[in-house]
Amino acid sequence: MKKKITLKQIARELDVSISTVSKSLRDSSEIGEETRLKVQAFAKFYNYKPNNIALSLKNRKSKAIGIIIPEIVHHFFSTVINGIEQVANEHGYSVIICLSDDSFDKEVLNMEMLANGSIDGFIMSLSKETQFKADFHHITEVINQGMPVVMFDRVTNEILCDKVIIDDKSAAYEAVQSLIDNGKKKIALVTTVDYVSVGKLRTDGYIKALLDNGIPFDENLIIKIENVDTCEIIISKLLQDKAIDAVFAVNELFAVTCIKTANKMGLRVPEDLSIIAFTDGIISKYSTPTITTVSQNGIKMGNKAAKMLIDRLESENEEEENYITEVIETHLIERESTN
Amino acid sequence: MKKKITLKQIARELDVSISTVSKSLRDSSEIGEETRLKVQAFAKFYNYKPNNIALSLKNRKSKAIGIIIPEIVHHFFSTVINGIEQVANEHGYSVIICLSDDSFDKEVLNMEMLANGSIDGFIMSLSKETQFKADFHHITEVINQGMPVVMFDRVTNEILCDKVIIDDKSAAYEAVQSLIDNGKKKIALVTTVDYVSVGKLRTDGYIKALLDNGIPFDENLIIKIENVDTCEIIISKLLQDKAIDAVFAVNELFAVTCIKTANKMGLRVPEDLSIIAFTDGIISKYSTPTITTVSQNGIKMGNKAAKMLIDRLESENEEEENYITEVIETHLIERESTN
Repeated sequence: MKKKITLKQIARELDVSISTVSKSLRDSSEIGEETRLKVQAFAKFYNYKPNNIALSLKNRKSKAIGIIIPEIVHHFFSTVINGIEQVANEHGYSVIICLSDDSFDKEVLNMEMLANGSIDGFIMSLSKETQFKADFHHITEVINQGMPVVMFDRVTNEILCDKVIIDDKSAAYEAVQSLIDNGKKKIALVTTVDYVSVGKLRTDGYIKALLDNGIPFDENLIIKIENVDTCEIIISKLLQDKAIDAVFAVNELFAVTCIKTANKMGLRVPEDLSIIAFTDGIISKYSTPTITTVSQNGIKMGNKAAKMLIDRLESENEEEENYITEVIETHLIERESTN
Repeated sequence: MKKKITLKQIARELDVSISTVSKSLRDSSEIGEETRLKVQAFAKFYNYKPNNIALSLKNRKSKAIGIIIPEIVHHFFSTVINGIEQVANEHGYSVIICLSDDSFDKEVLNMEMLANGSIDGFIMSLSKETQFKADFHHITEVINQGMPVVMFDRVTNEILCDKVIIDDKSAAYEAVQSLIDNGKKKIALVTTVDYVSVGKLRTDGYIKALLDNGIPFDENLIIKIENVDTCEIIISKLLQDKAIDAVFAVNELFAVTCIKTANKMGLRVPEDLSIIAFTDGIISKYSTPTITTVSQNGIKMGNKAAKMLIDRLESENEEEENYITEVIETHLIERESTN
């Protein structure tokens, strides 16, 4: 018996990308004819079997949900998974998790693997690379084969499916407004390089809050950190040069680094510098001082995503395609880093 | 076509445990004859198909590894997963993760699901409930069907398979010895209720270090915390009553709570109280003061476990059953909470 060949092996053998193989097999006009035919011939010769999910779905339910997330050492994603598990288990579903490691190729391969009969539907958050490439064909393919997908947090408008998000712009707006309400006027935004959609939305919320309160927007106060290792140096420069009185950080790692750097420079938190972080994780609860955060409510997001997927899996009406985008409310958890 | 029935459904229908169903189907003498025959008849009527892994293994490799871990909001397990992913991906394997949530039933169900052709072998850490029940039949079954299993961290002597552990006893010994070397004489152990094997070993190491140094062992200095919510109250009582000069905590959550409680009571860390934690996680790095820890080296443990599993999967010699237990070295990462 000839061994079953995979998408990845075809890509390696022909020295093309996984995405090219996948598109060629669907006869996509995005791929040049020569490559397309070569891939198809190769796949045929090695008896490549694409997933025939649509055919098998009617007869066979795995009663399992597949989750694809970018990374696991991340409190927010862990809490979303716990939220998904709760609802899934209540409804008799098992949960299988795969990590994309923020890599497009791993996201494609993991989806291909799980779609192969192991699961009934996906809950996923896009990898950074997928958002950067804006290539979503692997998701379209799964949906076209009749397998429902629910996206959360890192989503895209390019795909029609159910989504669960938080309103990142409003959440950032409220956090910055609360700093302004406490008399802060020179507020820095410490953020990542924003090829992830949520980063852009948080920046928009920050700017809008400033302008709505008549505070001029100074783009030198937006600090973009590419690499966590350089975080301390960049923040110490910010605190030295800019005489700021508050920081809004897009994650708690940046926030705790601000606190430590401020302490070293003799600044007191919150007396001299107020700090709010996005994401309510374990660092915020246990740092000294504890950190005021915008809670993304990962458990609730996971609950909701699982509910939406299971509703779709168990719905009788398969024609219906009224996809819903649920917006989960955030709230500010006030702790010691603000006054 | 009749729908495929699962182990769980049989258990529910007959109002017996999943474990009873699983054992009855293997005709285990542990189960009374009446129940056994009832389960078998029911399973036969509903056309229950057990996994025929041994049959299919020769022809079909999924090139995927299944991981079963107790929980995900836990830095140590996350780093082990990253370690497994590294080596697995290098060797062209995908990784699928399931959570047991420290529940025996979920561990059994997840293994049943994944063993059904989705993966080639398991890397797992036992759930607390499995260790407490000491029921490992689901693991024996998988191994008997020809599917290799590698256990890490929470392992059992009851199962013959490859294992990756740290020497919890020596690691605890070294940590306590380092406190003694710094002149500490009244050292408390803050630990969990120890139905998990590692907890017992760490306590043994703590006691041995004291006795080897001629320090009398006082069992009132061993504080067992069942519930994280009561942690602060118990620790504050310890600090009040016992006039201790050091704490060895079996996790960083207990350690950071010690620091916060000590601060509230006017004690300085490390001047009045030295603290060492087991597990080098994110809290230890970012608390104030930062915490001296015993690093369990999760990445290395994951690397090793993946290497052992892949070696076994790709070995030609299937008779060989020289199971290995690899001991990963720990080391003390000295930070601000000790002097």
